[in-house]
This record gives sequence, C-alpha cells and structure tokens, in this order.
Amino acid sequence: MAPRTFAIIGTGAVGGFYGAQLVRAGFEVSFLGRGDVEHLQRHGLRVLSPEGDIVLPEVRAYGDAAAMPRADVVIVALKATANDALPGILASLLRPGGTVVVLQNGLGAEDAIAARAGHARIVGGLAFVCATRIAPGTVRHVADRLIDLAPWTPDGSPAPPDAALRALAADFERAGIPVRLVDNLALARWRKLVWNIPFGGLCVALDTDTRQIVEDPDARELARAVMIDVIAAAAACGQVLDRALPEEMLEATRALPAFLPSIKVDFDAGAALELDAIFGNPLRAARRAGHPALLIEQLYRQLGFLDRARSRRAR
Amino acid sequence: MAPRTFAIIGTGAVGGFYGAQLVRAGFEVSFLGRGDVEHLQRHGLRVLSPEGDIVLPEVRAYGDAAAMPRADVVIVALKATANDALPGILASLLRPGGTVVVLQNGLGAEDAIAARAGHARIVGGLAFVCATRIAPGTVRHVADRLIDLAPWTPDGSPAPPDAALRALAADFERAGIPVRLVDNLALARWRKLVWNIPFGGLCVALDTDTRQIVEDPDARELARAVMIDVIAAAAACGQVLDRALPEEMLEATRALPAFLPSIKVDFDAGAALELDAIFGNPLRAARRAGHPALLIEQLYRQLGFLDRARSRRAR
Repeated sequence: MAPRTFAIIGTGAVGGFYGAQLVRAGFEVSFLGRGDVEHLQRHGLRVLSPEGDIVLPEVRAYGDAAAMPRADVVIVALKATANDALPGILASLLRPGGTVVVLQNGLGAEDAIAARAGHARIVGGLAFVCATRIAPGTVRHVADRLIDLAPWTPDGSPAPPDAALRALAADFERAGIPVRLVDNLALARWRKLVWNIPFGGLCVALDTDTRQIVEDPDARELARAVMIDVIAAAAACGQVLDRALPEEMLEATRALPAFLPSIKVDFDAGAALELDAIFGNPLRAARRAGHPALLIEQLYRQLGFLDRARSRRAR
Repeated sequence: MAPRTFAIIGTGAVGGFYGAQLVRAGFEVSFLGRGDVEHLQRHGLRVLSPEGDIVLPEVRAYGDAAAMPRADVVIVALKATANDALPGILASLLRPGGTVVVLQNGLGAEDAIAARAGHARIVGGLAFVCATRIAPGTVRHVADRLIDLAPWTPDGSPAPPDAALRALAADFERAGIPVRLVDNLALARWRKLVWNIPFGGLCVALDTDTRQIVEDPDARELARAVMIDVIAAAAACGQVLDRALPEEMLEATRALPAFLPSIKVDFDAGAALELDAIFGNPLRAARRAGHPALLIEQLYRQLGFLDRARSRRAR
C-alpha cells in the first residue's frame, strides 16, 4: 500500500509546524496557504526550534484548494474563524474514504464540518504545541508537540480508536510527533479549554504573556478561578475532569518560557479572534446544561469589547 | 452664632469642586493641598462647569495641616490611599465638637478614622459628581453635584440625622450643593458601589470611558453582571438594594457625557489606585457574610495585575 498522503489546510504556526515534520519524514504533503503562499512557493518553509530547526527549501504550496492533489488525510489547521470555507475545500481535496483531522482549538468545529461534509471520516485533534508564525513561511517552535487524536461521533459519545486511526497515529509518530489516542473527544476538548480559556483570555484582557500570569499573584488566582469555572462547565456537560488540573496546568505553564497564546498573537496582529470556538461555544454549551459559567462569560465579553475597540481604533 | 468654618483635606476634583462652592457662598474655607499648593496660593482655584464657571483668584491654601486654622467642619476629600495621614491632620485641624465629613468612595474609611480619631463626630458623605482635576488648581465639572450625608455609627446601624447634621446640610444647600440626608450610611455606600465597582473597574480593565461601556453590548452586560454581584454582596451584608438599580444606573449613565471614573483618571496618571476602598473592602465584607462575589474579585484582581504591570513599565 502506498504511504498515506496529506494536505494541510492553513499553513500558520500549527499547520506549518506539523506539516514540516511530516515532509521531513518523507510523506507527500501539500499545503494550502493564504497570505504566505507566494513566499512558501519561492522559499519553502522553516521551523526554528530548540529541538532542531527544519528547513524545507521547497514545499508543495497552493493558494487554491481546487489545484491541490487529493489527499488521504486532510489536516484542518485553519483558524476556526475561517471554517465557513471548509466544506468546499474538503469536497475537492479529500480522497474517497479519506480522513479529516480537525486540529483546532475550542468546541464545535467537528459537528459543523460533519453537517456539511458528512461523507468524511472525522477525527478530532488537539495540538499541544507552543509555536508561533513569526514571519512568512517561518514558525518558531518554543516547546511541546504532543497531539491528542480521538474519533468524532455524531452524538458526541466516546468511541475507541479503530485500526485506521491507529495507523494514522503511527504515521505521526514516525514523523516525530507524539500522539495520544483518546476515546472521548469531548473530554479532551474541554480539558484543553481549561488552559485555553484562562490563558488565552487573560493574555488578551491583561495585555500580557503566560509567564506574567503564573508569576503575578492576582493573575494566577484569576487563571485558577476561570479554570475552576471551565471544569464546572465541563462537568455540567457530562465531562468530568480531575480537580487537580488547575494546579497541574499552572505548574506546567510556569515551567514553559513566556508564551503568547494564539488568540493573543491574533489580537496583536489585528487578525480575527477565535472567540466563538474558544469562549462562545463552551459558554453556550454550559448554559444549556445549566451552569451559568459567569467567569467564562466575563472573559468572552471583555474580549468581545476589546476586539471591537481595536477595530474602531484601526479605522 | 458665627458661620461654620470649613477645611477641605485634599484639593482634587471633589475637594476643589465643593470647596469652591462653599467659598463662593461666603463661607470661610481653608484648603490642604499637595502638589497644587503653590499654584493654589498664587493663582487660586477654578471650576469650569456647564452650569457656570467659578473663578476664585485667591483661596486659603496650605501645604501643611499644622499651619491651618482650626475648622468646625473638616471635609475629607483625599484619595482613600492617603488616609494614613488623616489622624494627625484631624488632631490639629478639627475644632472641639467639630464634624468630619468623609467624602470618599468605597467602604471602611469612617471606621478607620473613628478608630484613630474617635473624639470627632463623623459623618459619611457620598459625592455624586462628575468632575475631574484637569490642571493645577483647575477642576472641570461635567455633570451632577448631589451629596448624600449620613451619620456614622460605631456598629454600622442606621441613625436619623440630628440637628447638627441638618444644619450642616443647610450650609451646603446655601452653597448650591443639593444634599440628601439619609439614615443608613452602609446602604448608601453599597448603593454607590453598585456604580463605582463596574464602571471604575471596567473603564480601567477595558481602557475605556463610561459612554463606551453603556453603548457596547458586551461591556454593558459586563457592567450589569457586576452590578448584580455587588447587589448580592450588599444583601449578604444586610443592605437590601432595589433590583431595578442596574437598569436605572445604566440608563442614567447613558444620559451622561463620556466620563472617566476617578480610578481610571488615577490609573492613566500613574497615581495610586483606591483598590482596597472600592474593591477589596467590599469583597472582604461580602466574603465574611458568605457571598463569594466572584465578579468583584475578578475586577479587583485584574486591576491589581494592571496596576503592577503599569509600575513595572514605569520603572
């Protein structure tokens, strides 16, 4: 059997980082870019990492999904704010029987994709990687690289990874990407939100980085309180997380270099914010399940205000 | 009987505004200033107001309380952050049998003053005035001027205003300052916090003004949610406020010109913030009474972080 082929939708920090690992391991990978396409076509892709740089002078980069070869695996690494374009892209790009890996933050993307591209096998992916696109075609990798992969199911119930998913995980592992196969996608997504909501939200609201948050006594308590609210929201939705998670995540974040979560990078760059994926969808899910999620709401609304204020200033 | 004499401690927006009204009405008023003293001594005091300017080319301004004549009424219009200096000032300044009017924001000032200057009759005052010190010796008055006056009692229980307090109120009214005499100081202080905590806190946290808050859908809901938390905190402390208050205050604020609450002016000026008076003391009182006050805590901690971040940048 020929090796699986990959298409990466969105060549930012996450798409560029993981795509580069797959290319280096010898997989056939095509990249869909936006602003960076010409640069990618001329100069290729670079990942600068304390674990070793990857310099790819040539990559298969495209500005139009219709021109791309069909692939066995389509990795969705767009911002969730651009997901409206996905059904068309997937229709032209995915080989029959292929797999879509939704490597995005927040809640709700898989359901939305399934509703409009139901022919595909859909896998939820969670990237635990500190990486930032610092220039066209250039990603700075700071720390971590783990991916969680879990089968998506129409009703959100857990499902054991099948042979096809295990084979995909083996490809990732061969490319130097550690994979954790998990049964419960919803639980994994909520678990990641326990970090993303407080750190993403507070880095924007307080105009700071992860290091300042864990080192400042007030900001650390803010983060902890929001984490507890997210855990309560998850529990209301039937996803029970360990009560020790906030302390573990605060400690793990203290061990990282100072880092700007992607929503803070987007905010500073004047780009669209993944407000609904990271804040709005979890908030609405918690509300439907009877948890008011006041602290999630506070951050969601603060970022909504700051986003509009930023747009007003830019005009 | 000779007319009552007044001393104003703190010649900022509030002290300057009300002091100028009293001077214009013919009362003997001395002012204790800090940075502005020399300017006040040379050029006097100006209040610029849509209701008519007050220009006082000469005022009795002092940089040292010990040099000031004793007064029947001492009006404390310092920032609460400077209250440590009050016992010494009051000891030298207050005529025996005189009255201290604590015209400050937040909770706890009267108790602290009484504990260290217990000989004085203490009155709590709440200034409902939109005014800002825009230059040395110069106050811009934007809107409103009402003062609530209430007797302070050692145990915090309500007490009807006595003849002395009614006479003081009559002086204020003669000076064009409308006064509302109230029995329940604690209730009045919590009522004002229902405005000060959300609008002061959010104007700093979101780097904005009152107008943007009431006009932005997210910021308005943030303000409303914080107001509801303050009302719940007050209720836990035995002070029952009208549930319609948030809507009334949002409407009243919408009718005002864009305004920066004093804590936002202080933040932008790099001055000390009344964090404990406006946020910390109400939060601790609510906690002692069994209400967690999560949203008050969020703003308190955000402002604590922002205050330290501002100091770090200034170094």
